[in-house]
Amino acid sequence: MKKIINAPADVVTDALRGMAAAHPDRLRVHLEPDFVTRVDAPVSDKVAVVSGGGSGHEPLHVGFVGSGMLDAAVPGAVFTSPTPDAVQAAVREVDGGAGTLLVVKNYTGDVLNFETAAELAEAEDIGVRTVVVQDDVAVRDSTNTAGRRGVGGTVLLEKIVGAAAARGHDLASCHEIAERVSAGVRSMGMALTAPTVPHVGEPSFELADYEMEIGVGIHAEPGRERVELESADRIVRRLLEPILEDLPFREGDEVLLFTNSMGGTPPTELYLAHGVAERFLAERGVRVTRRLVGPYITSLEMQGMSFTLLKLDDELRQLWDAPVSTPALTW
Amino acid sequence: MKKIINAPADVVTDALRGMAAAHPDRLRVHLEPDFVTRVDAPVSDKVAVVSGGGSGHEPLHVGFVGSGMLDAAVPGAVFTSPTPDAVQAAVREVDGGAGTLLVVKNYTGDVLNFETAAELAEAEDIGVRTVVVQDDVAVRDSTNTAGRRGVGGTVLLEKIVGAAAARGHDLASCHEIAERVSAGVRSMGMALTAPTVPHVGEPSFELADYEMEIGVGIHAEPGRERVELESADRIVRRLLEPILEDLPFREGDEVLLFTNSMGGTPPTELYLAHGVAERFLAERGVRVTRRLVGPYITSLEMQGMSFTLLKLDDELRQLWDAPVSTPALTW
Repeated sequence: MKKIINAPADVVTDALRGMAAAHPDRLRVHLEPDFVTRVDAPVSDKVAVVSGGGSGHEPLHVGFVGSGMLDAAVPGAVFTSPTPDAVQAAVREVDGGAGTLLVVKNYTGDVLNFETAAELAEAEDIGVRTVVVQDDVAVRDSTNTAGRRGVGGTVLLEKIVGAAAARGHDLASCHEIAERVSAGVRSMGMALTAPTVPHVGEPSFELADYEMEIGVGIHAEPGRERVELESADRIVRRLLEPILEDLPFREGDEVLLFTNSMGGTPPTELYLAHGVAERFLAERGVRVTRRLVGPYITSLEMQGMSFTLLKLDDELRQLWDAPVSTPALTW
Repeated sequence: MKKIINAPADVVTDALRGMAAAHPDRLRVHLEPDFVTRVDAPVSDKVAVVSGGGSGHEPLHVGFVGSGMLDAAVPGAVFTSPTPDAVQAAVREVDGGAGTLLVVKNYTGDVLNFETAAELAEAEDIGVRTVVVQDDVAVRDSTNTAGRRGVGGTVLLEKIVGAAAARGHDLASCHEIAERVSAGVRSMGMALTAPTVPHVGEPSFELADYEMEIGVGIHAEPGRERVELESADRIVRRLLEPILEDLPFREGDEVLLFTNSMGGTPPTELYLAHGVAERFLAERGVRVTRRLVGPYITSLEMQGMSFTLLKLDDELRQLWDAPVSTPALTW
């Protein structure tokens, strides 16, 4: 295992210490239990938006804490759900009296632990609503998931609902907007290489030099099929066709196209794939009016990428365009 | 070779097409010769800041085009200098009547080709000054370099001099500020894995499973030594001690600490190393007051990292803090 770390068991805490040092003006980092809040939390009378999940997908979620996005993020161990008490502590810290929206990716452990945390918070008279993101069209009922996995759509949802909360929408309205994003977003990914979880020390799967995994999950869960490496043109088609078939995105639809690196894929390859995808969608009459290109939901050092398509309406587009200021996303 | 590409010879052009599609509101992408300008170039009566170099280090330089940073970037083929005519075409496109500052990393091909481009531009009555960045303390006279290599300091210099130009400093003043940054900045990097150049198809060097390269260059040039993999604590010390010995940065100095991923190193490891570096510097009384953490000058998919330290004074700090809006750096 080749990593720049000290003790494998301390990776998440050590990285959080580094985040605290790097962003003293933006973030407050809490340890034991581990969570990150915006430095000015709680914001009075604003709905708090809280997310979390296993570490190893950075910048998701800790890099998205800040004005216009998340009030708090709760990182578990690598690829492991955060505990209910950590989520509860984060909710308690950031609730500003207008309630809290929990953004949860659909993995069994995450769903259970956030559910318990919601009950604990409600027992303290904090209003809580939850949205579960399940946008991965690749497979159903994967490793650690009943139903579809939550992947790239989570990034877009956190940005949009964060903007809604910043604009003063109440908890019911934030929840409605989050459900609308969830209903209109679909993703699919692929991998060229496997990630290595620090406390495991071995790659999460074996892939031959000439192979790629189509439909891979962000925890290196198996996808739809393992095939020989192909051109970028064919890879893009393999990812976008199932997305278009699923929702479906139709001619004339206005969409946001999110081209995501799984971590190890460099910008040249990612922009190249993004260009291919824009042409593919233009040929089908799908209008891409907003874009996000970069490593925003990753799987440690895994090489690979994913596409996410989100149907936009006027309100969602305006919320996407609204200002955001976080370590990983700012405009 | 595992990459998401079509023909290896077309990688740079294909990626530029993707950048054009991704950032239509910010960038104008020119092909044959290839260069990228801010969409509103030329900006009248502002010094234009132009940089460039071989591709494969993204976001440097193309991702730094925008207000408050570069007016144009000229990407060559992967790890290959851009041609003088491409640089000349970019300068012609962005010069707003106040002259152009060329930011060049110290590699023999880059220095020669930018020199020729400067002469061509001057023949057209465009005022040109050049700063050559040579901040890598690892080695002298490396592959393709006479003297020290230009690495991470380039990112900081482009941000700071871009801000000076945006504030209305004239060409002589921008050049003086650039030279001051160059004089006060030092870097050193390391690698865990080798990158693979698309048109070569094989890793740029061989490194055993238990080895790392200390002092590596951003084109995978050899460093100071190849040693067994160590803890993050020891790696950080191996990079920072030569930097502190070289300038030297002294107790009480105010510095910017830039912790850079070479591409394949994920945020957890990078933040972890950043945290170790902040403690190391604090113990020596060096005051870190500004930070940058992320993959900003990379070597394709290479796993590894580098540190850059820049001495700050009031003016440099204010220019660093000034607004910037580019695809890869915004605040």
